[in-house]
Amino acid sequence: MVERRKPIKVNEAITKVMNFAKSGMVEYVPIEESYGRFLGEAILADHHVPPFDRSPYDGFALKSADTKMASSKNALSFEVIGEIGAGSVFNEPVGDNEAVRIMTGAQIPNDCDAVIMFESVKEYVQDGKDYFQLKRKLQPGDNISFAGEDTTKGTVLVFKGTYITPGIVAVLATFGYKKVPVSVKPKIGIIATGSELLDVDEPLKPGKIRNSNAYMVYAQVIRAGGEPIYFGQFNDEFETCYHKVKDSLEKVDFLITTGGVSVGDFDFLPAIYEKLGASVLFNKIGMRPGSVTTVAEIDGKLLFGLSGNPSACYVGFELYTRPIIRTFLHANAAFLKKEVAILGADFPKPNPFDRFVRGHLSYETGRLVATPVGLDKSNVVTSLAEANILIVLPGGTRGYEMGMEVSVILLEDQEGTTFENFTTADVNSRRRQRTYE
Amino acid sequence: MVERRKPIKVNEAITKVMNFAKSGMVEYVPIEESYGRFLGEAILADHHVPPFDRSPYDGFALKSADTKMASSKNALSFEVIGEIGAGSVFNEPVGDNEAVRIMTGAQIPNDCDAVIMFESVKEYVQDGKDYFQLKRKLQPGDNISFAGEDTTKGTVLVFKGTYITPGIVAVLATFGYKKVPVSVKPKIGIIATGSELLDVDEPLKPGKIRNSNAYMVYAQVIRAGGEPIYFGQFNDEFETCYHKVKDSLEKVDFLITTGGVSVGDFDFLPAIYEKLGASVLFNKIGMRPGSVTTVAEIDGKLLFGLSGNPSACYVGFELYTRPIIRTFLHANAAFLKKEVAILGADFPKPNPFDRFVRGHLSYETGRLVATPVGLDKSNVVTSLAEANILIVLPGGTRGYEMGMEVSVILLEDQEGTTFENFTTADVNSRRRQRTYE
Repeated sequence: MVERRKPIKVNEAITKVMNFAKSGMVEYVPIEESYGRFLGEAILADHHVPPFDRSPYDGFALKSADTKMASSKNALSFEVIGEIGAGSVFNEPVGDNEAVRIMTGAQIPNDCDAVIMFESVKEYVQDGKDYFQLKRKLQPGDNISFAGEDTTKGTVLVFKGTYITPGIVAVLATFGYKKVPVSVKPKIGIIATGSELLDVDEPLKPGKIRNSNAYMVYAQVIRAGGEPIYFGQFNDEFETCYHKVKDSLEKVDFLITTGGVSVGDFDFLPAIYEKLGASVLFNKIGMRPGSVTTVAEIDGKLLFGLSGNPSACYVGFELYTRPIIRTFLHANAAFLKKEVAILGADFPKPNPFDRFVRGHLSYETGRLVATPVGLDKSNVVTSLAEANILIVLPGGTRGYEMGMEVSVILLEDQEGTTFENFTTADVNSRRRQRTYE
Repeated sequence: MVERRKPIKVNEAITKVMNFAKSGMVEYVPIEESYGRFLGEAILADHHVPPFDRSPYDGFALKSADTKMASSKNALSFEVIGEIGAGSVFNEPVGDNEAVRIMTGAQIPNDCDAVIMFESVKEYVQDGKDYFQLKRKLQPGDNISFAGEDTTKGTVLVFKGTYITPGIVAVLATFGYKKVPVSVKPKIGIIATGSELLDVDEPLKPGKIRNSNAYMVYAQVIRAGGEPIYFGQFNDEFETCYHKVKDSLEKVDFLITTGGVSVGDFDFLPAIYEKLGASVLFNKIGMRPGSVTTVAEIDGKLLFGLSGNPSACYVGFELYTRPIIRTFLHANAAFLKKEVAILGADFPKPNPFDRFVRGHLSYETGRLVATPVGLDKSNVVTSLAEANILIVLPGGTRGYEMGMEVSVILLEDQEGTTFENFTTADVNSRRRQRTYE
């Protein structure tokens, strides 16, 4: 006889999983390897940026007071008494109607308070000395980048847990981080189960399919910021699976299995959880695909029992495993960004449960447009190739028409959002199921 | 005396660079290492998906004709004559009013044409035999995933040059790609020049700043899909720089230098191009920041002379170097996606030249909103940390007000767009500079 499971709501399932979220350690990597990692601590400015008043252009530094009478009808002459390359300092005095040739990035001489660009003057030589003529009045501070105008010392520049972009690498270099504190990647074990599974390089056989879930999840773990460890695939034989799960669990921070969580006769994961002494947080969720997604916990370590169906497996990972990985990486915004989009095609099926439809996000004159891709069957692999969003159709809604507002989860997003935003931001009542005017 | 350079337009500069774009080679990597690479050839379906008719649920396979008389008032009995686990095949005949217990993913027996889920029947045992009662009429094909319904054999699944996502990894596994053909990463040399540059771990000194460009560009190269090779930083001494450029050039597919391209007295790159015999495609562009961005070419190999100012360097890379890298990776959509957004804050400065303002993209109820970050000075490093877009303000426009439509370039986009879209998609005439109603 078949076990009857009681489904819980998606947000309730997320909450149960997040109760066991924990942060990992911090390690140091060379700055060249920091791109794509997550900051293990906040970055503070240890000095002003720029550290000194400097010239943003190639030109001449002078005293603005000397230019007071300059105009298009009254060219004033300045003598060029020296030159400053970037990285050099000019320590001599600068007298009235004198100027110093200055290169981009070089420090402004103490006596000067403005810079005029090469292009704006007429240079000439007289009696072996360099001069230029100026026909424009300058104000104090003209063409000067002031010390601290970009950033004052002590400012928090980037928060802990932030995904490191090339722009953040520039900040790290500016503040002397030859080694960068980054969050240690959680080790995520992956085990595929199912007697129907062929390995990826096996020829097809009657009744069998190639194992795509393990490799897909492997890539999802990398995208989420974790370190995947693939322990292989096992057929639906209890003892083999049990020992594999038990041994693997000791080597990782979290363990993912794919398959074996249904109520089918060869679905051994429930029995494995029981024998391990793990407590099952839930084994049925009111969602499609992925209703059989199961999460268990032993000694604070989470076991993610993802479905054997590729799309269900994919969705289960992004909803429940990803935020656990991001929290481990110290990200506050551990969840995928959820935004509002206009549906780009009809979706006539009613939604008795929360539905996560694979879709493709495009932009039409500044508006987000979400179009379902491929068939909406939980075993469809190829539509996953096109999907960059999940379209969220809340349970209890009728079919949707093109032009209606829907919530979408951005799969390639690295910025993230918080638990609060993720679990409340749905376009989720039937009342709001309206066509965009 | 100062050289007067004639600026060319941004799109003209892009066109000149793209004339020298070329595709690279293809190599094979294990599927586990394919995430984030670019497909070196198109992926074709070498078999139907699913490869056979199969059950998407745990249940009983039967002949739909036998259920014709079933209703809530007329329960029909079926004898369960066998069981099929996923990966197994049931080869015996199935008679009238007989059924076979079938697990998710298992192949449908030849005689059957429908599946009923466990939850929808009432099982019982009589005289040691298994039966169930059914109160619902089934149609041929009910609850069957048909062979080829996901993908028919021969379909092009993913195009050459596509960025490999986890969903694409699933497709690769399904079609047996244990080794995946990926585009060889172009080797991009990086040389930083400038006497003002301290290495990242040196303490600050008067007049000097730390070298942030080299590490920033290093990360940008990785994000774009290339393999960066950092050759170090050199001061503004001609012979040293010349030999370093010449030697490095032989080891790479493209070479990036930062700094040394202005008309300043210590800017040696123009002289280095001349001594190398390289032809300069342009050395002045009508854009801010990055007007001094210079690109030269020798024997078909491109030398990108990016500005020494961090923001100018950043923008120059994304506009001119990135599409060259993506073309090398066989991407057709080699340019960053350019979309329309609503300006989230005033930008009062007029734009005599095309301006690329660092900004942050957010979403407000399905609309893209672009907000400038930090100061708009070309030497501002810290605002780069927040930027995920460049706001494009075309030359010849006045100041912009909050709420106006602007074009934005999405910096974290991996999908890309074509040359045609990138160079024509601007919200670019003064006429269209309007506030969103």
